[in-house]
Amino acid sequence: MLHSMTIREQIHKVKEQSRKLSTSDDGQRRELLGLIAEGLVRDWPLIQSANEQDCQRAMKEGESQALLGRLSFTEDKRRSVLTGITQVSLLPDPKGRVLEKRLLDEGLTLSRVSVPLGVIGMIFEARPDALVQIVSLCVKSGNAIILKGGAEALLTNRALVSSIARSAGASSLGNGWLLLLESHEDVEEMLSCRSDIDLVIPRGSNKFVQYVMDHTSIPVLGHSSGICHLYVDKDANLDMAVNCAFDAKTQYPAACNAIETILVHSSVAASFLPLLQKKFNEKKVVIHGDERVCSFIRCLPYKEGDWGKEYLALECNVHIVDSYQMAVDHIATYGSHHTDAIITDNDATAKAFLMDVDSADVFVNCSTRFADGYRFGLGAEVGISTSKIHARGPVGLSGLMSSKWLLYGKGNVVSSYVGDHAKTFIHKDLL
Amino acid sequence: MLHSMTIREQIHKVKEQSRKLSTSDDGQRRELLGLIAEGLVRDWPLIQSANEQDCQRAMKEGESQALLGRLSFTEDKRRSVLTGITQVSLLPDPKGRVLEKRLLDEGLTLSRVSVPLGVIGMIFEARPDALVQIVSLCVKSGNAIILKGGAEALLTNRALVSSIARSAGASSLGNGWLLLLESHEDVEEMLSCRSDIDLVIPRGSNKFVQYVMDHTSIPVLGHSSGICHLYVDKDANLDMAVNCAFDAKTQYPAACNAIETILVHSSVAASFLPLLQKKFNEKKVVIHGDERVCSFIRCLPYKEGDWGKEYLALECNVHIVDSYQMAVDHIATYGSHHTDAIITDNDATAKAFLMDVDSADVFVNCSTRFADGYRFGLGAEVGISTSKIHARGPVGLSGLMSSKWLLYGKGNVVSSYVGDHAKTFIHKDLL
Repeated sequence: MLHSMTIREQIHKVKEQSRKLSTSDDGQRRELLGLIAEGLVRDWPLIQSANEQDCQRAMKEGESQALLGRLSFTEDKRRSVLTGITQVSLLPDPKGRVLEKRLLDEGLTLSRVSVPLGVIGMIFEARPDALVQIVSLCVKSGNAIILKGGAEALLTNRALVSSIARSAGASSLGNGWLLLLESHEDVEEMLSCRSDIDLVIPRGSNKFVQYVMDHTSIPVLGHSSGICHLYVDKDANLDMAVNCAFDAKTQYPAACNAIETILVHSSVAASFLPLLQKKFNEKKVVIHGDERVCSFIRCLPYKEGDWGKEYLALECNVHIVDSYQMAVDHIATYGSHHTDAIITDNDATAKAFLMDVDSADVFVNCSTRFADGYRFGLGAEVGISTSKIHARGPVGLSGLMSSKWLLYGKGNVVSSYVGDHAKTFIHKDLL
Repeated sequence: MLHSMTIREQIHKVKEQSRKLSTSDDGQRRELLGLIAEGLVRDWPLIQSANEQDCQRAMKEGESQALLGRLSFTEDKRRSVLTGITQVSLLPDPKGRVLEKRLLDEGLTLSRVSVPLGVIGMIFEARPDALVQIVSLCVKSGNAIILKGGAEALLTNRALVSSIARSAGASSLGNGWLLLLESHEDVEEMLSCRSDIDLVIPRGSNKFVQYVMDHTSIPVLGHSSGICHLYVDKDANLDMAVNCAFDAKTQYPAACNAIETILVHSSVAASFLPLLQKKFNEKKVVIHGDERVCSFIRCLPYKEGDWGKEYLALECNVHIVDSYQMAVDHIATYGSHHTDAIITDNDATAKAFLMDVDSADVFVNCSTRFADGYRFGLGAEVGISTSKIHARGPVGLSGLMSSKWLLYGKGNVVSSYVGDHAKTFIHKDLL
């Protein structure tokens, strides 16, 4: 019914409708999430058949196994998506939290409370389960959503969005707060709608995220690259270092929080590197090593530019450093401020690393793969941000919130606090 | 000595130097602020003489009284600037605060701590006292600064920055974390240094702030216009409404938090408007009224576009609305999401207004002029943000902070939490 409107008009309409969601109470949003979950069960045959068509077309077009894996909306994924909706629904209400409260003067009370951002523009890969997760997080946080999923999932996304819209129509909040975009031109249009969209969250290739950041004046949350490091300190437990490196590189190499470079202190290189190579051989990890590394183990020699590469595959740089400071400097120079870890039994070195490394996530003695909204206990995540403003690292519900200042007075005016006989503020914190 | 480097190189140098500040402790930053304050006293004759030259040139060039007032660095301002440095210095350390803490599993503890943003790019008007205030806030929060002040204050700013650099040279943190830009071309260059600048805060005319927002992909915090409203509800105490309107319009009309439009419920218009006019006559406030307003009091008739004007002068729109909802809709349509207030004795209406109005500051029964970092008890402010992400409203120390996630493990790997026999997370909040 909206199709006679331009994309810009449709987006503006979503902005208008967003007020219903942003002023809703948690009960209404839980009701809506419940209806959405029921609707997905009801409409599952339609969704499944749409997904089969998407998958068949993708196969015909010779898409990779990895893409087909992400695209296919299996029974397993359906189950975990439905569990996810329930879990998100039961999280504490992120809206209306009193973040600060202060008595400015007798009868003049200030508070800062959390409020939804308004409208989120979300661009994501061909993963239908991600669509449902994103919608759950936005509904729970009271935000309207403009969605653009991967083109390969077009029919599945349409089936999902029409199911969700039908469910929403039966709720007290109604629908109109969700819009699915389908083309690159629509995304271009969206990126220019600054007054109607409060935040854009792009997921996808580095190049794409960078493109979005360069082509909109709407605030963008996300990360372009994930060049993560593991530093094996001179005081490291080497078995732990091998295990953590193996997990961080191989547990899911295509993830942004997988490591691309292992930095090894020279004093442990001779004992550590053979252990690493043995373990990495289990999964045939290709090692790109500097000259000294190549003198200890068999590896591809370092080429200009390797330190800045995000392999996203079973390949890994290994670089020997002569000091802690060289490791920290290497991370500052080549890292992407995403997730970096140290393996050390020296507490002072660990503390220094946490302070010195300027990344969203800085870890001691564990795998970088823990950098994830679910593992962090945020319920779920819409993405990981390497921006320093607003949310940094995995972005869950709280990253989808803004705040506003509320001031209750009894007729107070500023002129009473100025000039001779000026009253003074009390500024007493009440929280 | 830096002048043989390009602006881009100088900015990159500041980024490198920023690590000293961002890893400093509060004692070092207090020491630095103390030295800066002493230095300003020591160098006061130089600063004063530079300021006199700036003022003389501005007078010769026929600048407005308002600009001369802002430009002139009087003894009064010096005193308040020195007090300000001490006050900011004594605020609690905004760095290293533990914002969240969670046990993910036995031996795996996550925390989120506040950290400085890094490098702030600050563009501000010809107010030398503002330069000192901004520097204090940035130092206290551990951020390096690229400054561009109004051209009229060039000599004063140079004298201030060289005094501050001299003081910093004697501190344990050294200098190099402060750079003064002098030309528009330098600002253009700065806006393109995304990898070296973490946040840009522009102050100035709407047009200028808008220009900055449109011409950089660095995150920008600020507000372009301040179209603030006062809504006089049907249940308003009319004397209170008159007092608050008078303060909000006349106490400092050039401020962004001064009101531009008064919305009056039709049921109280006949009694309220003559009272308003009488009070406004004291300061010769020009009223632009809609047709109905003109039938009650003498005023200039409303012209197309008036609702969206930021007068910044003793002029004010007055508009009669027939319902609460019409007032809220008017604010949503014409406001700039800065600061809006309601005058009402009806608690339910007040609560609805706080919820329904999507502005950084929403006030009940007081003047909009309270929207200010100092009055809010934030110590001071670098500006007021109408953006919904990061800090919203007056931006004090906490708005200059980011956070990072720290995870301490004992060799934990993600593969233990996946597949058959997967361990489950504990996710126990420790704060």
